[in-house]
Amino acid sequence: MATKTSAEPPASKAAPDAKRRSERSRRAIYEAALSLVSEAGYAKVTIEGIAARAGVGKQTIYRWWSSKAEVLLEAFIDLGEQAAEAAGAEAGAAYAALPDTGDVAADIKLVLRHTVDELLDPKYDAPYRALAAEGVVNRELGEKFVAKLLEPGLQLYVARIESAQRAGQIRADLDPRIAMELFVAPLAQRWLQSSGPLSHAYTDTVVDYALHGLAPRQV
Amino acid sequence: MATKTSAEPPASKAAPDAKRRSERSRRAIYEAALSLVSEAGYAKVTIEGIAARAGVGKQTIYRWWSSKAEVLLEAFIDLGEQAAEAAGAEAGAAYAALPDTGDVAADIKLVLRHTVDELLDPKYDAPYRALAAEGVVNRELGEKFVAKLLEPGLQLYVARIESAQRAGQIRADLDPRIAMELFVAPLAQRWLQSSGPLSHAYTDTVVDYALHGLAPRQV
Repeated sequence: MATKTSAEPPASKAAPDAKRRSERSRRAIYEAALSLVSEAGYAKVTIEGIAARAGVGKQTIYRWWSSKAEVLLEAFIDLGEQAAEAAGAEAGAAYAALPDTGDVAADIKLVLRHTVDELLDPKYDAPYRALAAEGVVNRELGEKFVAKLLEPGLQLYVARIESAQRAGQIRADLDPRIAMELFVAPLAQRWLQSSGPLSHAYTDTVVDYALHGLAPRQV
Repeated sequence: MATKTSAEPPASKAAPDAKRRSERSRRAIYEAALSLVSEAGYAKVTIEGIAARAGVGKQTIYRWWSSKAEVLLEAFIDLGEQAAEAAGAEAGAAYAALPDTGDVAADIKLVLRHTVDELLDPKYDAPYRALAAEGVVNRELGEKFVAKLLEPGLQLYVARIESAQRAGQIRADLDPRIAMELFVAPLAQRWLQSSGPLSHAYTDTVVDYALHGLAPRQV
């Protein structure tokens, strides 16, 4: 998920000191945006407020991003990249690939359990909800949210399903993009619509139902 | 879905003429709210603007509802009730019960196709997205959205699944509340997050995958 985006500061072109300062400002802006949304609510957060909290001029923010939603989006992309660097191959949301132990049920349950833990983390609840809500009503931001934050993760499920198809654990005739949604969409809907509690037992059950089907198996 | 709510005007207590006027005002307020959100976007809509468009005093709105989100919520509940009255037993989103022809796959595909058509209706796209987005970030409104608008529909799926369990078409040991989510959540996520196109072919495929499972059936 370490996709570089054009909205990022052109740090690589700067001299080493300027690059460090630029990197420090960028992280300070992300942290300011995340904490302000948690404290005050998305509607009350302004670019000016983020700049003041981060200790930068507001022009610094406007140079890199066009809206507070864009700042939040990049902040979450950055969190994913940091987690990927820190975790290496450890199980987590930030992967180069999903685990592949040869047991597709166990591997997908593990990843979904980790996602449940992340979604229940109060530190990121308000800003991640704000970003998702903005994506529901703002088509342009929604497309960026999907392209930069959601779809790279979903593609890891697709790749794991394709591997399971080659191993004969998932039917070869299924569309892996749609098959993947049976694993992830129930959790996404419960989180987005607060239509039910999130737990490891719940996502484990969803994986079992999706793999084995709701209809009785013929004997 | 014709659940009466405390936020509705106390029409039944009024004299016949007052009741008719009250009913007319209520519908005018709903229509004003829906069309204003479509035209101007949710953020720009105010209670004052809704009142002006509906030809009522803003105190009339404040007497019945505490926010524009509440007005929208009741407007969609009312649309559901109107559709239920108009459609009778016909297939649609507004049911007393899902169809039960004895073929659970066909019945659920039919209802999901109808939901796809509704979600693609440009008339309600902006206000329904605005309401769903508000529910993502506003816990109190989200709970009302689920309790009054989402859950009554989901319970119809639960009832249809329970009927299919008695008929041996869905495994009796499954939790019908979770089983239901495999049918509806993929469509909900695609709609909420614009993570893929909505079509009848898509929801048909989801129903087949959920019923028969992603893993190969043992022969």
